[in-house]
Amino acid sequence: MSTLDTSSTGLQALLSPGAVRAAVLPVVRQQISSLEPTLARICSYHLGFTDEHGDPSGAASGKLTRASLMTAAAQGVGLRPEDVRIPAAALELLHNSTLVHDDIIDADELRRGRPAAWKVFGVGPAILAGDALQALALQMVVDDPGPCRAEISSAFAEALRLVLSGQSRELTVRLGSGTGIAEYDRILEEKTSALLQCALVTPALRAGSPEHVLTALRGAGRHLGLAFQIFNDVEDVWGDPAVTGKPVRGDIGRRNPSFPVLAGLSAGGPPSERLRELWHSDGTSAAHLQEMADLIEESGGRHRAEQRSRNHLESALEDLGRAGLSPAATAELTALFDRIVNRTA
Amino acid sequence: MSTLDTSSTGLQALLSPGAVRAAVLPVVRQQISSLEPTLARICSYHLGFTDEHGDPSGAASGKLTRASLMTAAAQGVGLRPEDVRIPAAALELLHNSTLVHDDIIDADELRRGRPAAWKVFGVGPAILAGDALQALALQMVVDDPGPCRAEISSAFAEALRLVLSGQSRELTVRLGSGTGIAEYDRILEEKTSALLQCALVTPALRAGSPEHVLTALRGAGRHLGLAFQIFNDVEDVWGDPAVTGKPVRGDIGRRNPSFPVLAGLSAGGPPSERLRELWHSDGTSAAHLQEMADLIEESGGRHRAEQRSRNHLESALEDLGRAGLSPAATAELTALFDRIVNRTA
Repeated sequence: MSTLDTSSTGLQALLSPGAVRAAVLPVVRQQISSLEPTLARICSYHLGFTDEHGDPSGAASGKLTRASLMTAAAQGVGLRPEDVRIPAAALELLHNSTLVHDDIIDADELRRGRPAAWKVFGVGPAILAGDALQALALQMVVDDPGPCRAEISSAFAEALRLVLSGQSRELTVRLGSGTGIAEYDRILEEKTSALLQCALVTPALRAGSPEHVLTALRGAGRHLGLAFQIFNDVEDVWGDPAVTGKPVRGDIGRRNPSFPVLAGLSAGGPPSERLRELWHSDGTSAAHLQEMADLIEESGGRHRAEQRSRNHLESALEDLGRAGLSPAATAELTALFDRIVNRTA
Repeated sequence: MSTLDTSSTGLQALLSPGAVRAAVLPVVRQQISSLEPTLARICSYHLGFTDEHGDPSGAASGKLTRASLMTAAAQGVGLRPEDVRIPAAALELLHNSTLVHDDIIDADELRRGRPAAWKVFGVGPAILAGDALQALALQMVVDDPGPCRAEISSAFAEALRLVLSGQSRELTVRLGSGTGIAEYDRILEEKTSALLQCALVTPALRAGSPEHVLTALRGAGRHLGLAFQIFNDVEDVWGDPAVTGKPVRGDIGRRNPSFPVLAGLSAGGPPSERLRELWHSDGTSAAHLQEMADLIEESGGRHRAEQRSRNHLESALEDLGRAGLSPAATAELTALFDRIVNRTA
């Protein structure tokens, strides 16, 4: 089961980002076009296929991170990319359903450098479009004729439940007075790791891999999500908006909990005290946000975040090694993990 | 397969509304309590189990129309109520997921006589709660250990897709300039009939009933939805808010398309012309709405709506007859159809 099948196609060609796009995007496009016309238009806009008038657009469709992970993991358990093409496309739709709703919930006006769907089409239609993506994703795995669709459907439903749970926990925490690092880890495991775990585990379910492989892949997905999201938190404060596609310091402006802030707040000492003061104030001016960013750095929050992200990436790679996938797929996933965490994928 | 099994429990006791509640609500409660605490609290409030503080509440949980239909249909194909207890509870959750989001989309402030979930908990948390109900419902049918879960999961996913399609079509039509009766029927078949068809068909799928039974039950659900929704439109204009739980004339105030209005507008003659004028004006005062109601009645819109609702109910009962369920279940469903359409169920 861990023998790589490269009989029909070369590994390198298949796993290039372009090849994953070529395999998965046609399925995504075809499924979207089956939706009611207004829903299709909103989803097509959100995915970067069209502009707000419905005309073809060259906008980015996202990095297809989850589809790429699933495709690479499939080869690692001896499957061909086409054996997971439907769940790979479905997982991208499921991920995007959460983004469409998340932008409404957070009042985020930008997504991938363009106005968010709710800003263009209104809150009501965007709620329905997110619902439709969610329903479509689950329908695709439920109706997928491939083997073990019941187990895969169950994994998808559970992953979605966890993402929603994490999003709700995050919202509650934001409204409350603060949170500890353990609670924050739990939020990330739910809202970020769950779909990455689903990406890695789905091929193993389809291939009927033994339990220890599933466990190792779940661990890899868990650590990968934590590494990715913590680095993402760092990018929110010090990243380039041209790369992230979002306004800089949006999360600290909204007082969303993030690892560098939590680490800064828990560090103790004068910069940490001053950071706490500002964090609990209403200030959102650029000067305010700059001072907070400087204080997070001075209190060691940035350093601890970068260190912790690296540690989780190492743990993810250790778990990946335990899964015993084919060497070529392991190498491919290792490179992919690194690109995902460092946002160059 | 159409033999009624009443060996363990009397039919009458099982099919009373109280008995359906007793069978289904514990499953609903248990599933809701498994959600993340904030999501559980919102869903529990929406379902009438608790008040806004999370304390037990005596509020109405809805009529469990879909669970009642499914339970009665189950007996009609020789199954016991407990054979469909999980899908019956799941279908109620799926229906409620659409209500939670629909109230946000329509800015409806009241649901079953209480403030809607989004008014109490905010739009963001209510979006997530609706998502969670949708995900939970699909997870329940996907993980249901009963027979033919793949077919039932597929029917649920398709029903949800249709509901969202109908809701989006309705929203688009409302924003546009008007709609014909054929387009309106299509909206109702999607947004209202789809879940009723799912309720009637699920037991037949579980029992492995032949295709002609499925076709007849789908037809019955289609007509039942049309009969119900058209009567519902009449109730919006002339019903008692104490019974409907919603402000009177909300739909015509928001210029939502409804059958009596469409029939009035297409009737021709002076009342119809005057109705068209008011319909395209901005007026939403009580005097405006009263004049519109009178004009709908004078132009024959109310009469045509009531007649059409009755005709669809008759067609639903004819299709039910063609399904060849057990006589006791057919009698029970006949009474239930009548109570659903006339809102006494």
